[in-house]
Amino acid sequence: MTAIRDTYTVGDYLLDRLAELGVSEVFGVPGDYNLEFLDHIVAHPDIRWVGNTNELNAGYAADGYGRLRGMSAVVTTFGVGELSAANAIAGSYAEHVPVVHIVGGPSKDAQGARRALHHSLGDGDFEHFLRISREITCAQANLMPATATREIDRVLCEVREQKRPGYLLMATDVARFPVEPPSAPLPRYTGGTSPRALSLFIDAATELIADHQLTVLADFLVHRLQAVKQLEALLAADEVPHATLMWGKSLVDESSPNFLGIYAGASSAEPVRRAIEQAPVLVTAGVVFTDMVSGFFTQRIDPARTIDVGQYQSTVAGQVFAPLEMDAALDALATILARRRKVSPPVASKSDAPPPQKPSRNQRLTQQILWDRVSEALTPGNVVLADQGTSFYGMAAHRLPRGVTFLGQPLWGSIGYTLPAALGAALAHPDRRTVLLIGDGAAQLTVQELGVFSREGLSPVIVVVNNDGYTIERMIHGQSAPYNDIVRWNWPEIPNALGVKNHLVFRAHTYGELDDACAAAAEYQDRMVLIEAIVPRLDIPDLLAELTQPTAPDGGRRR
Amino acid sequence: MTAIRDTYTVGDYLLDRLAELGVSEVFGVPGDYNLEFLDHIVAHPDIRWVGNTNELNAGYAADGYGRLRGMSAVVTTFGVGELSAANAIAGSYAEHVPVVHIVGGPSKDAQGARRALHHSLGDGDFEHFLRISREITCAQANLMPATATREIDRVLCEVREQKRPGYLLMATDVARFPVEPPSAPLPRYTGGTSPRALSLFIDAATELIADHQLTVLADFLVHRLQAVKQLEALLAADEVPHATLMWGKSLVDESSPNFLGIYAGASSAEPVRRAIEQAPVLVTAGVVFTDMVSGFFTQRIDPARTIDVGQYQSTVAGQVFAPLEMDAALDALATILARRRKVSPPVASKSDAPPPQKPSRNQRLTQQILWDRVSEALTPGNVVLADQGTSFYGMAAHRLPRGVTFLGQPLWGSIGYTLPAALGAALAHPDRRTVLLIGDGAAQLTVQELGVFSREGLSPVIVVVNNDGYTIERMIHGQSAPYNDIVRWNWPEIPNALGVKNHLVFRAHTYGELDDACAAAAEYQDRMVLIEAIVPRLDIPDLLAELTQPTAPDGGRRR
Repeated sequence: MTAIRDTYTVGDYLLDRLAELGVSEVFGVPGDYNLEFLDHIVAHPDIRWVGNTNELNAGYAADGYGRLRGMSAVVTTFGVGELSAANAIAGSYAEHVPVVHIVGGPSKDAQGARRALHHSLGDGDFEHFLRISREITCAQANLMPATATREIDRVLCEVREQKRPGYLLMATDVARFPVEPPSAPLPRYTGGTSPRALSLFIDAATELIADHQLTVLADFLVHRLQAVKQLEALLAADEVPHATLMWGKSLVDESSPNFLGIYAGASSAEPVRRAIEQAPVLVTAGVVFTDMVSGFFTQRIDPARTIDVGQYQSTVAGQVFAPLEMDAALDALATILARRRKVSPPVASKSDAPPPQKPSRNQRLTQQILWDRVSEALTPGNVVLADQGTSFYGMAAHRLPRGVTFLGQPLWGSIGYTLPAALGAALAHPDRRTVLLIGDGAAQLTVQELGVFSREGLSPVIVVVNNDGYTIERMIHGQSAPYNDIVRWNWPEIPNALGVKNHLVFRAHTYGELDDACAAAAEYQDRMVLIEAIVPRLDIPDLLAELTQPTAPDGGRRR
Repeated sequence: MTAIRDTYTVGDYLLDRLAELGVSEVFGVPGDYNLEFLDHIVAHPDIRWVGNTNELNAGYAADGYGRLRGMSAVVTTFGVGELSAANAIAGSYAEHVPVVHIVGGPSKDAQGARRALHHSLGDGDFEHFLRISREITCAQANLMPATATREIDRVLCEVREQKRPGYLLMATDVARFPVEPPSAPLPRYTGGTSPRALSLFIDAATELIADHQLTVLADFLVHRLQAVKQLEALLAADEVPHATLMWGKSLVDESSPNFLGIYAGASSAEPVRRAIEQAPVLVTAGVVFTDMVSGFFTQRIDPARTIDVGQYQSTVAGQVFAPLEMDAALDALATILARRRKVSPPVASKSDAPPPQKPSRNQRLTQQILWDRVSEALTPGNVVLADQGTSFYGMAAHRLPRGVTFLGQPLWGSIGYTLPAALGAALAHPDRRTVLLIGDGAAQLTVQELGVFSREGLSPVIVVVNNDGYTIERMIHGQSAPYNDIVRWNWPEIPNALGVKNHLVFRAHTYGELDDACAAAAEYQDRMVLIEAIVPRLDIPDLLAELTQPTAPDGGRRR
């Protein structure tokens, strides 16, 4: 804990709680209603201020950080700042990322007079944006001096519990109000699993599993709810063939012989589809089927043969057991497998297609060549962020080395997200090298954050896929329509213009040029390496071609 | 009217209505839920698509366009796109700018199944963002096929009437639903002025004015409500000393001998303050006192001697007359003056301080020298946008030539706003040259729009005030705090990196270098001219020094 000017304040209390939850970097943009609070951040022994170029980028950075750290925080100013971050906060909500959004507001005193203060709508109502936050956060508080610490605890507990963003509106005079430091750690919610529900679940699961081989389809919520260890134990308890959706890519070790691949409904590779849909008993863990990860809801999962493990409840052949937390349910399933002592046969390790032939050096780049080479360049420990265009779908089909973390945003799907998110991810784990894969159209939305990587001493590898516009949109509609064109930028000049120092830039038209760039990226671990990969305008990864096929089912189609 | 594929649709109807209201450019960013509608924009004979690099910028551009054209439109996609524009839309609301926000949504069909569609929160609720829009727009509609045209008319009428943004959520299948074209122009609301209220107002005003000289304090709402001609007639009906607030700067001819200057409460120049506060009879027209334009609410206006003319009502010595529209009230006041045939004495034309001594060529730039020289360079017809930092306060104190339009955002005060707003303003009046004045910190928020000026064939003059960080924040709090630092960019390289063509770039450390740059800007009317003006870190305009003085009243202070 810390205090400046000898007084321990509401602001200090909030920072101490964030530090307790593992936050050591706070993102944001200064504004006159939060400046004084920023002094407290700067003075805090365990927390560091990371200023961003705008609030949307700050929110995205906090999201990237929160995905890896399990908690994050972003500070904006009233009205103008918080609304600019709204898209990022909503994305964190949709994708279950714990982000605390702290908004500095005008003093309660000034609000009381209901006057037309700057950054307000001028109508004397200072709760418009609080009401907006209710739609996109799991808990909110408009802090008052007397109850501020209790309210901070309530919101932070909900964020930690639900893994979704929370909102704290902190007026300048509330932030500086004197309070006592926390006297005990934030309480944990303990009623998440009923012993009776667990016991009944075990009985039902044991009966359904019997002596069948278990197949597992796991997805992103296992990661968000921090049940990865429990999942790994389940997969190790027998020979368990398993897959993930694209959303949860990298959740499991993709180099394991029991890893089937990515399941995407009718868009899956055929052996994966068959293994999942025809499994004698399937466990779905932390799975949410969205349009883009399910081949537009073409999943065919028979509930009668399925054990579904969710955030607060599990089902066995359609019967619900609750309250039952994910980690407890996964533990129970691992125990069932271990106890029956029957070892299933190993998966007939069908290796994927033979490793692709190395292209000749002067072969023009294509999406296929690009993602093959980028995948090959990945090394354990890399954190890979792929923007929700050709990059995401291009990488989704490639197996990742063990220990690589892959981040995308397939439900919320906000283009440009990954560039600032990569900053957040890199600061969450500065020891792991970040690899950012993003289209030229997407990168234009958030490009100004580039210089901040450099200021923070980070050295990501950034692949900008230059296909001259919004290629993913072209495939959906308007292939040659003017609205899918973008202004052509001079990518090799961008980093220097935006204040990046000591970087390397490559423009790759051919496999050979890409190969050289990848080699340089591997050699210069301590420098930002930007690779502009030039691919044909209408070339797209196979998986995306599958998803944007006009014959795909219509219900949830992109159109 | 237009139709593609032989069917006239809801989308076509909306576009025809927008064209009727004077919209010829529509801003926005493509997304899969609006692509098909964009085809209709591209096909429309009177409307052109102007794609932006991101949605915040698109919203700002629409705001700048709407301020000059009296109506504008921006198209975004569901969730991700619309929320990114929320800050811009809220700013249009706060500052009374008519912007129609059109959001492309998933088909009603797909929504009906309540599935986890991309760009939704995944919870099956597709009205989260509609509810958000209620806080920051004056009218909203979630369009349904059967009532779409009626609802479009309702929302557009409200936007035109209230001069505030409206929100239209248009699902893909609603946009393509067949309807009839409009059969009559959008109806105008006609009950805005009661003859009885007007007559009583005239009696009361006549009595209060008697044979006193009238003084007028006019502000931005006169411009927004399109009552400028009526104001001009009032000012011409006698010798009428007059002033504006900073918000309404350029509303009146600042070269007139009867123009007093800018009134800003206790922060006013003393002769202006005295003339306004001691006026025998004062007319305040379209005035809203906000913290930043009133010297933190230090205005001293005696209601007993004041006639206040507002949007829907007027008051005379505190007595309210309503419903009474602004133009009718101003007309009545002009008639009263003209009728009494008494000519007040002309204002003793106190010329401002003697014209500043021309600095020597090698004198280092300061804020004072910078704004003196920029003001001198302005020519009739220029549209000047000054970002809400030192640029705005530096220019506010300078008299503008007749025919210059000045745009700032002192209530909402979102930094970075003016860069995309300048794009919108330039497209609203391509025959008038745009001059953008913006700080280096502010420009970082929205810089990616630069290339779009070039694509659109525009040739603005852009002055980037490089004072190494958020100087306005430094003056408020944290003068040397790290959070007020920014990453240093290489401004002369930025335009080329971002795809601007045929531009000129100048870096000015001295008066002579600035002078040369201004001369070049005047000479090359058809090229973008970017001037990086380097001024000391803590140098600020006098007016801003006044406003950020620690002794200023505290109630609504920036802190």
